[in-house]
Amino acid sequence: MSIDKPLHQLGLAEAARLIASGALTSEALVTACLGRIEAREAVLQAWSSIDPEHALAQARACDAGPPRGLLHGVPIGVKDVLDTFDMPTEMGSSIYKGLRPAWDASCVAMARAAGAVILGKTVTCEFAGMAPGATTNPHDASRTPGGSSSGSGAAVADFMVPLAFGTQTGGSVLRPASFCGVIGFKPTFGTYNRAGVKFAAESLDTIGLIARELDDLALMNAVLTNSAAIAPAFPQTRLRIGVCQTYLWHKAEPASRAALERSVSAARDAGAHVEEFVLPPPFSQLTETREILNNVERARSLAHEWTHHRSQISPALTRSVELGLATSDDQYRAALRLAEWCRLELDTMFNSVDVLLAPSANGEAPEGIAYAGDPSFQGLWTLLHVPTISLPAGKGPHGMPVGVQMIAPRYGDRKLLDAAHWLIARAGVHGQME
Amino acid sequence: MSIDKPLHQLGLAEAARLIASGALTSEALVTACLGRIEAREAVLQAWSSIDPEHALAQARACDAGPPRGLLHGVPIGVKDVLDTFDMPTEMGSSIYKGLRPAWDASCVAMARAAGAVILGKTVTCEFAGMAPGATTNPHDASRTPGGSSSGSGAAVADFMVPLAFGTQTGGSVLRPASFCGVIGFKPTFGTYNRAGVKFAAESLDTIGLIARELDDLALMNAVLTNSAAIAPAFPQTRLRIGVCQTYLWHKAEPASRAALERSVSAARDAGAHVEEFVLPPPFSQLTETREILNNVERARSLAHEWTHHRSQISPALTRSVELGLATSDDQYRAALRLAEWCRLELDTMFNSVDVLLAPSANGEAPEGIAYAGDPSFQGLWTLLHVPTISLPAGKGPHGMPVGVQMIAPRYGDRKLLDAAHWLIARAGVHGQME
Repeated sequence: MSIDKPLHQLGLAEAARLIASGALTSEALVTACLGRIEAREAVLQAWSSIDPEHALAQARACDAGPPRGLLHGVPIGVKDVLDTFDMPTEMGSSIYKGLRPAWDASCVAMARAAGAVILGKTVTCEFAGMAPGATTNPHDASRTPGGSSSGSGAAVADFMVPLAFGTQTGGSVLRPASFCGVIGFKPTFGTYNRAGVKFAAESLDTIGLIARELDDLALMNAVLTNSAAIAPAFPQTRLRIGVCQTYLWHKAEPASRAALERSVSAARDAGAHVEEFVLPPPFSQLTETREILNNVERARSLAHEWTHHRSQISPALTRSVELGLATSDDQYRAALRLAEWCRLELDTMFNSVDVLLAPSANGEAPEGIAYAGDPSFQGLWTLLHVPTISLPAGKGPHGMPVGVQMIAPRYGDRKLLDAAHWLIARAGVHGQME
Repeated sequence: MSIDKPLHQLGLAEAARLIASGALTSEALVTACLGRIEAREAVLQAWSSIDPEHALAQARACDAGPPRGLLHGVPIGVKDVLDTFDMPTEMGSSIYKGLRPAWDASCVAMARAAGAVILGKTVTCEFAGMAPGATTNPHDASRTPGGSSSGSGAAVADFMVPLAFGTQTGGSVLRPASFCGVIGFKPTFGTYNRAGVKFAAESLDTIGLIARELDDLALMNAVLTNSAAIAPAFPQTRLRIGVCQTYLWHKAEPASRAALERSVSAARDAGAHVEEFVLPPPFSQLTETREILNNVERARSLAHEWTHHRSQISPALTRSVELGLATSDDQYRAALRLAEWCRLELDTMFNSVDVLLAPSANGEAPEGIAYAGDPSFQGLWTLLHVPTISLPAGKGPHGMPVGVQMIAPRYGDRKLLDAAHWLIARAGVHGQME
């Protein structure tokens, strides 16, 4: 096999194949990624901790040993709310400066057991919330990369690493993917085991993936679900797409509306059945419902930090905890029940369509890095526990990436990856960074 | 207020009232509990770590300072799978000997913020699973106290501490409560925040409480749900009880059958409406379904330990991980879906009754301490995510305690505590240790 691009631009699956074939060493690949980081990190600030020697040592161990699994020798980034036994886990908070957990988070351990090199930890907003770090958008350093998986989005988009883990409680995987022009995937709630994750809000927190290529998500999905690696395939029947503007359509900027419309037209032209998909009235409470759960559960999960380290908690998170503490348990339980009702209703509504298309985010990445953007368009689906993916779908008026979001029913993760493959390959929605 | 019993026998709510009134100091209470431990721990082996000086320092700080909350000055025990920042958290595994987490688990932090003294950590089976520690049953040291919250059950039953935290993935709170003759309460899944819990199986793991008195559970429940403290009250309407033998009735020993029958008769005599409650056929798959989820999720949550410390994992847990790794993701997802279907079906079935009565466990605590007993009668309800409580309901042929289990619909936690109060006060089911 010959390699027709700079090594740091290789995708995860492609690199794994090259390493397995002997055409590439893990050390060469990791060296290339570290070189890219060396060149660009001063501007991007995507990594909260990275130790080149440790990364190279992992790579050399892969090269020296027998194949360990599907990810043998390929580097990945890990959002810094996921525990790693050999690197700090600081969670974007000064409270945990230098903390070294005793273990790897489940997803990190499973990736490592499959041969992955943990390249480093990527910058997260404070406790996967709203207060961002210093990361900038690779397309324009004056703009946010989105959050809270800020470093994972920026590092993947800037070709520093082919894939990175994120977590999504509101829109923390899909929004940075959309803003940075890469693919973000949040599986069905509960799919990737959460042992070793610092909880933000446990009824919402979902581990997800950011990558440049769909095959790479499918490969990592196989590893984290202990399944055979099967590349996405075209759906066997005509794809039925529901176009879901959602009750948030008034927040969609022209760039996001146009991206959705272009994607829908392309899908129709390529042969999909397309129909309008309207969420019934109770769904319009889901944004507020998600905020209730988020605030109450954050207040509880941060009870220790609230007692012992309150002065080190940001004003934004302080506000969230205070709102959570002021919410009655009855309100909290009512929010849980409404969310469950909507999940079951949506299950039924999916009888008439295979997947939905919806906006990924309000629009392009906003200017400045102090605000990581509005999580509404992603948070709705997070609360509904459905698998969802953001695909790059063109540029907005400022030349920044804009995404389109595809959603499948709960447990329809494979179906979602297949439909996304079809949308990219047959309907020509970009599906990867320009 | 005068105190009419030895201090170590005080309940949590009673002690909190006495401390608040000035009739008792935290130091005196903690000293009494430590004295009981000193006298009995050689036989019971209920504590994995306890530091009397540290416990007394917490007590003195309470006595010296302003009231902190509902639990001001009262001691509690904490199962050793729950993180504590000031004590080791070893999870019943030699892998984590001496581990000191950076934080308190959410429930520990919330209890501390309400004024509780963390007396020490209680013995758990290995990673809250099947391989027990050295704890013995306070009623007969040749018998198991049950598990995996072995130390919490034994310490509370032996009057070492008025209340202790446990976790239940199968039957790990209710079975030790039943075997030790105390009350075990597992709230609706997700009720007590799980930040800082080492996951066994995250779709099942539920933090629960073990105490000698119902009021004590209600008080701690208020603290952990950030609610006002309201003692259990009689239901306002005639209690409708469904008698549920379950598909496991063939496993119920005569002692458990008799305990259920006595409780039902007493409830009927006291005025409850009683009817038979039969679980539909799909429910009979729930024991196997729970095992699938347990094995798959344990295999994933222990991925780090499996890679790095496999020789320190017990044969029983090794078998569980191996079964989990051999289970396909499709089987796993089918198990999740069946469980959800049964939960919704049970919601509907609860239209005709307020609570169910069912066996707590197979029977009396088995002989020996190498096997912590069969989790089937508790695990069914754990998987269904419903709140459930085990009440002492007499003795078996060996003079060992036998319990009866009461179950309410999901989110009906308060209703359950009220119905249990009625059953104890009006129907005369013991409700506390003899």
